[in-house]
Amino acid sequence: MDVVDRLRQVLPESVVLSDPDRIESYRYDRAMFCPAGVPAAVVLARETAHVQAAVRVAAELGLPVVPQGARSGLSGAANAIEGGLVISLEKMDQVLRIEPVDQYVVTQPGVFNAVLSRAVAEHGLFYPPDPSSWEFCSIGGNLATNSGGLCCVKYGVTTDYVLALEVVLANGEILRTGRNTVKGVAGYDLTRLFVGSEGTLGIITEATLALRPQAQRPHTMAALFDSAVTAGEAIVDIVRSGVSLSLLEIMDGTTIAAVNAYKRMDLPADAAAMLIAQSDTGGEAAIQDIAKVAQLCTDAGATDCIVADDPLEGDLLLEARRAGLVALEQLGTTMIDDVCVPRSRLADFIAGVERIAVEVGVTVGVVGHAGDGNMHPTVVFDATDPLQAARAQTAFDQIMAIGLELGGTITGEHGIGVLKKQWLAKEIGPVGVDVHRSIKQALDPLGLLNPGKVVP
Amino acid sequence: MDVVDRLRQVLPESVVLSDPDRIESYRYDRAMFCPAGVPAAVVLARETAHVQAAVRVAAELGLPVVPQGARSGLSGAANAIEGGLVISLEKMDQVLRIEPVDQYVVTQPGVFNAVLSRAVAEHGLFYPPDPSSWEFCSIGGNLATNSGGLCCVKYGVTTDYVLALEVVLANGEILRTGRNTVKGVAGYDLTRLFVGSEGTLGIITEATLALRPQAQRPHTMAALFDSAVTAGEAIVDIVRSGVSLSLLEIMDGTTIAAVNAYKRMDLPADAAAMLIAQSDTGGEAAIQDIAKVAQLCTDAGATDCIVADDPLEGDLLLEARRAGLVALEQLGTTMIDDVCVPRSRLADFIAGVERIAVEVGVTVGVVGHAGDGNMHPTVVFDATDPLQAARAQTAFDQIMAIGLELGGTITGEHGIGVLKKQWLAKEIGPVGVDVHRSIKQALDPLGLLNPGKVVP
Repeated sequence: MDVVDRLRQVLPESVVLSDPDRIESYRYDRAMFCPAGVPAAVVLARETAHVQAAVRVAAELGLPVVPQGARSGLSGAANAIEGGLVISLEKMDQVLRIEPVDQYVVTQPGVFNAVLSRAVAEHGLFYPPDPSSWEFCSIGGNLATNSGGLCCVKYGVTTDYVLALEVVLANGEILRTGRNTVKGVAGYDLTRLFVGSEGTLGIITEATLALRPQAQRPHTMAALFDSAVTAGEAIVDIVRSGVSLSLLEIMDGTTIAAVNAYKRMDLPADAAAMLIAQSDTGGEAAIQDIAKVAQLCTDAGATDCIVADDPLEGDLLLEARRAGLVALEQLGTTMIDDVCVPRSRLADFIAGVERIAVEVGVTVGVVGHAGDGNMHPTVVFDATDPLQAARAQTAFDQIMAIGLELGGTITGEHGIGVLKKQWLAKEIGPVGVDVHRSIKQALDPLGLLNPGKVVP
Repeated sequence: MDVVDRLRQVLPESVVLSDPDRIESYRYDRAMFCPAGVPAAVVLARETAHVQAAVRVAAELGLPVVPQGARSGLSGAANAIEGGLVISLEKMDQVLRIEPVDQYVVTQPGVFNAVLSRAVAEHGLFYPPDPSSWEFCSIGGNLATNSGGLCCVKYGVTTDYVLALEVVLANGEILRTGRNTVKGVAGYDLTRLFVGSEGTLGIITEATLALRPQAQRPHTMAALFDSAVTAGEAIVDIVRSGVSLSLLEIMDGTTIAAVNAYKRMDLPADAAAMLIAQSDTGGEAAIQDIAKVAQLCTDAGATDCIVADDPLEGDLLLEARRAGLVALEQLGTTMIDDVCVPRSRLADFIAGVERIAVEVGVTVGVVGHAGDGNMHPTVVFDATDPLQAARAQTAFDQIMAIGLELGGTITGEHGIGVLKKQWLAKEIGPVGVDVHRSIKQALDPLGLLNPGKVVP
């Protein structure tokens, strides 16, 4: 029987999309150079039972299943597979329950990060993970890729906030992992096995996320440098000092110019790099933290330090930083790398990226979460020119290679998808690959869930 | 061939123990009522290659392997299996490398928690996980059980600090998980799968642990209550207030009396419960935090609040709390429960434990990490009296049942081992059990690693 007919036997009419025009928009996430097929159908699940039913049909017919959130991913993990099913979670978009005393929220996966963050803020609570894409990425996608963000440097990443999950397994059964309590060690940490598995082990249909009391309004400063490498050295000094920052970001001159053009901002055009630092400790302590960072930057050779007089000025600086990647996209096609290196090697890494850009002959804008060593060197090129496209790929790969050489990882927060599958094998080695395959086989013996993604 | 002879072919003489007298001391951890066999041999590994060689011999001969740290566990996970091998990691006791800028330490598993903590403190760094047993538990055991401790309420548990592991797998291969960087999402989170798996999936032979800048000297207060349930209500108020504490502990009257007797301390003998709170925010902020907590306790009905004038007084209060379990052990045999409940249910939980103690007719001393809802109701009894022993087991089980009823977990930090295996099945349900078995089968197809532990 045709898959669409079979799906319509077990699911409401409106849940099953088969119209080619509508399906087209469910084919790709935001990764470049990642192939995508045309799926046979898209299931717009409205409840867990829909996901279950669709997975069972896929198992019955031996079709691959791609779970999909808001398609804001940068590694092709959500790209459709030819002739398979896409199960979109975008309509499962309700925040189910907020528990102010126990400080957690129960949510469906389709809720956007910013929507959830604002909902809990109304109860005086704080959900820290804040990817730059927070206005258009979903919590389910954040869970699938273990997203980071700007405030990781103080508060950690998505996985640090996941207490419990509901997961539809490859056999259609529903697994509940984790707990509602702050601590718990009852059995294997299945929760964190599913977080970051990019839909290859199960489909997350509900999550219980830990919250914190709302942070203080941050104090902000920016420091300008005439060399990005010098800015990298300042970061090392800041980390070494032990000062507690809630944010420490970097943008290089290429990115500053792109943001000025895109956002009509008035960032200092002659700087080779800008660091932005925030402390949300509150009160006098935050003022002291920021003053200390400004001094460290000056000592490291900053040409100027600007301490924001009011929170709005700080917000504006953050807006500039968040706009970095989109601004670079205005200059051409982009390939966004996501290397994380030990913070002591940041200056070496930035120098290496600059060298690669010159040697390969491409433009690379460097932005990143400097405080935790997670950098997004972004190769900008003209995709219609095959020579430029080839050079972009070369630079993209060389940036990962230098990251590994410096003791880092090929991905700090964007994930593997299809984009970095071969590089994952280089990073984790043959025993690591074997263990990945064993676990994939154990949880998805028929290889139905997002096949061809993550596992080399 | 005899296992001891076979081991001596591949390992140095001094590494293989077969003398029955010496073996005897490697049979048990500190759990009560957990059976242990007599192993055929104990391998005192001094390097990873020894662990590998021993695992390969076990695979060849089809013998079970029990990895062992300092045998301070409370669930029988480290108990020997009749005729099998024990691989003790206690001689792999070197802190290998401290990286002050990147804020991590590389360590062997046999290092005691307190030794590691003091080693990194010399570099101005802080390893937060601090089980009460920190002076006599090993980092490897902490990793295997995902240990908590007193400062979890602010800093989280062991798994939150594990960046990378070296693991000897069931097939004798060496797996390296994780990374040296702050962030990373390259592949499945294997690191956290091994943490807390109690030696059933692999043997941890090296770990890279994240560190933090040293905290400020804490400010301390204690509040006294004429009812443990009222103290539980005060905890809920404190959590709801959002005040940031680095420690929030509870001891009931039974435990206070036991500590007074054991440590010759002068804790207030007529209190039914005492809360101890600390803030390590430093300076004026910490003083304000502690004053706020004192006020909340008074409002909730505390009979007295004592704010420690100097750090030494605070240390003394902490010493009293850390001595709680050992002090209760002086009164008889103990069964230490480890239930964690949502913090909003703490008062209900304490009331439930008091009811169980009366109904079953046993003594239960309540101590616990109140701030994160992780309680250690400790049943004290005369093990030579079969009636009392049966009652103790009944009370122990009923305490777990009430924890589950209140939305909690049967173990917050001590683990499953053999003690709670049947209860794990109740907590995670049949699908959860199936997934545990699949993962165990995937990583240890011959069932060699700590068989009979954890997985129901």
